[in-house]
Amino acid sequence: MPGHQVNSSTIAVKYRDEIKNTINSKNIRPKLVSFLANEDPAAQMYANWTAKTCAESGIEFECRKVDKKDLEDKIVEANEDNNIHGIMVYYPVYGDRQDQYLQSVVSEKKDVEGLCHKYVYNMYHNVRFLDDENTKKCIIPCTPLAVVKILEAVGVYNTVLPYGNRLHGKTIAVINRSEVVGRPLAALLANDGARVFSVDINDILEFNRGAGLKMSKHQVSETDYKLEDILPKCDVVITGVPTPNYQVNTELLKEGVVAINFSSHKNFAPDIKERASIYVPSIGKVTIAMLERNLLRLYDYYNKQ
Amino acid sequence: MPGHQVNSSTIAVKYRDEIKNTINSKNIRPKLVSFLANEDPAAQMYANWTAKTCAESGIEFECRKVDKKDLEDKIVEANEDNNIHGIMVYYPVYGDRQDQYLQSVVSEKKDVEGLCHKYVYNMYHNVRFLDDENTKKCIIPCTPLAVVKILEAVGVYNTVLPYGNRLHGKTIAVINRSEVVGRPLAALLANDGARVFSVDINDILEFNRGAGLKMSKHQVSETDYKLEDILPKCDVVITGVPTPNYQVNTELLKEGVVAINFSSHKNFAPDIKERASIYVPSIGKVTIAMLERNLLRLYDYYNKQ
Repeated sequence: MPGHQVNSSTIAVKYRDEIKNTINSKNIRPKLVSFLANEDPAAQMYANWTAKTCAESGIEFECRKVDKKDLEDKIVEANEDNNIHGIMVYYPVYGDRQDQYLQSVVSEKKDVEGLCHKYVYNMYHNVRFLDDENTKKCIIPCTPLAVVKILEAVGVYNTVLPYGNRLHGKTIAVINRSEVVGRPLAALLANDGARVFSVDINDILEFNRGAGLKMSKHQVSETDYKLEDILPKCDVVITGVPTPNYQVNTELLKEGVVAINFSSHKNFAPDIKERASIYVPSIGKVTIAMLERNLLRLYDYYNKQ
Repeated sequence: MPGHQVNSSTIAVKYRDEIKNTINSKNIRPKLVSFLANEDPAAQMYANWTAKTCAESGIEFECRKVDKKDLEDKIVEANEDNNIHGIMVYYPVYGDRQDQYLQSVVSEKKDVEGLCHKYVYNMYHNVRFLDDENTKKCIIPCTPLAVVKILEAVGVYNTVLPYGNRLHGKTIAVINRSEVVGRPLAALLANDGARVFSVDINDILEFNRGAGLKMSKHQVSETDYKLEDILPKCDVVITGVPTPNYQVNTELLKEGVVAINFSSHKNFAPDIKERASIYVPSIGKVTIAMLERNLLRLYDYYNKQ
């Protein structure tokens, strides 16, 4: 029997409904401002798509086109504008270091993308709440969070286990170790109890909380493994290799694997459907739902009357 | 008459003496811990040199060799250790983004290098104090700060002008726009009132606070200038090009220019001494004095009995 393909739009529905209901029942109108400071057509497309989604949800959305040299000042201005509840930036603008600096220029009170240092630090350190009373959950970057929500939706998270340990017993490969998605995702999954193999072109690292999940957060260790050593053991394989030339060798995958692709290219070959129990070919719709969800959280934390 | 060569060791003396006197008179023993997580012989040399300098000053110094996968945990441990007053890391460890993340993992209470987001943000935004009462000056990254102190020592800062505007009227080129030294340095000098040309391999940007220094912090604008357009106008030329092949064309420099090199390679040709009024071939000794000075500030801010 061929595997079950699950589209992200299906998974997103539940979150989109929750968001619409919250906005309607509270009669609020949160505002999200995005900054477009590059000429990337993909960023423009993402902006258009966000505009459409936000309109449907009852979120006010404004995409501000700015010159990159003015971007920092414009972010600071938006930080100080009480009518704006969420801020996002389409990266890359300058590239590596200056962009990472800009990520932390966005106020943590408005950082819907969860990319400022505090949120990233909390994520790596398995710090789940912003307050000592555990009432305000931390903001998690949208793309890794979308993968987590997809894994919940397709039953990989075991809800019989206590919150925080629901991936105990699962072995997961994440093929991509970018600082923006792959590494945070490996950390999140390991913090939730999985044994995670983080794969990049140079090596394979293992992220896990040890036997019996004795550690409060994941540790990272180097390995000499090759893909052929680890893939046959993996219950879940998640790919995000940003090239059209890369495809996972389906032969290496466990029968019944859960396969999730977050690259804009198809990192799984067509025969994945013969091997996987569940195949999620893209995650974009859930990512954008998470963006809205993060906006509502921030609105709730910092704008209560 | 050939120009006057000034060595950084001469300029460092004043700061080193201040540091020793403070430590002696207060009878304190600040502790600096550095983390060596790479195999870079230059880092090891810098550690040895820091050890020697700290010993002379009465600062306790400990270089901890750690595996890079343990570095983050070790930094967090040092953040929480009340016997440690300053923390530094020899970069690169992982390279770009993960290193920049680690820079902000160092507590701002112990960040002697001034590389965490808060200090970098304040520097770019010309925010000079940590408190509203203007009693605690912000920590400035050691290398750009060393260049500022050298410019003060060689008379480029005009002490007749009010603090914060002492470079008004000066035109300065900074040849290097790295996120670690060149860009912060250009911002610092422009915030102090200079017209600054920030040069890298792609283009020349201008940093300045506008006519009459009307703006509270520098703005950045793109230019079409080439080196030959700007160098003849510059009162000060500061170089940091990390290759043995690059040398500034002395012919382009103004007679009597102040020339400062912070690259480990000689970015000025030997004939610079015929053209410059003052030539500073390296800045290392002042940089390390600034490291000690930052340590004392942090000790003072956060460890007063």
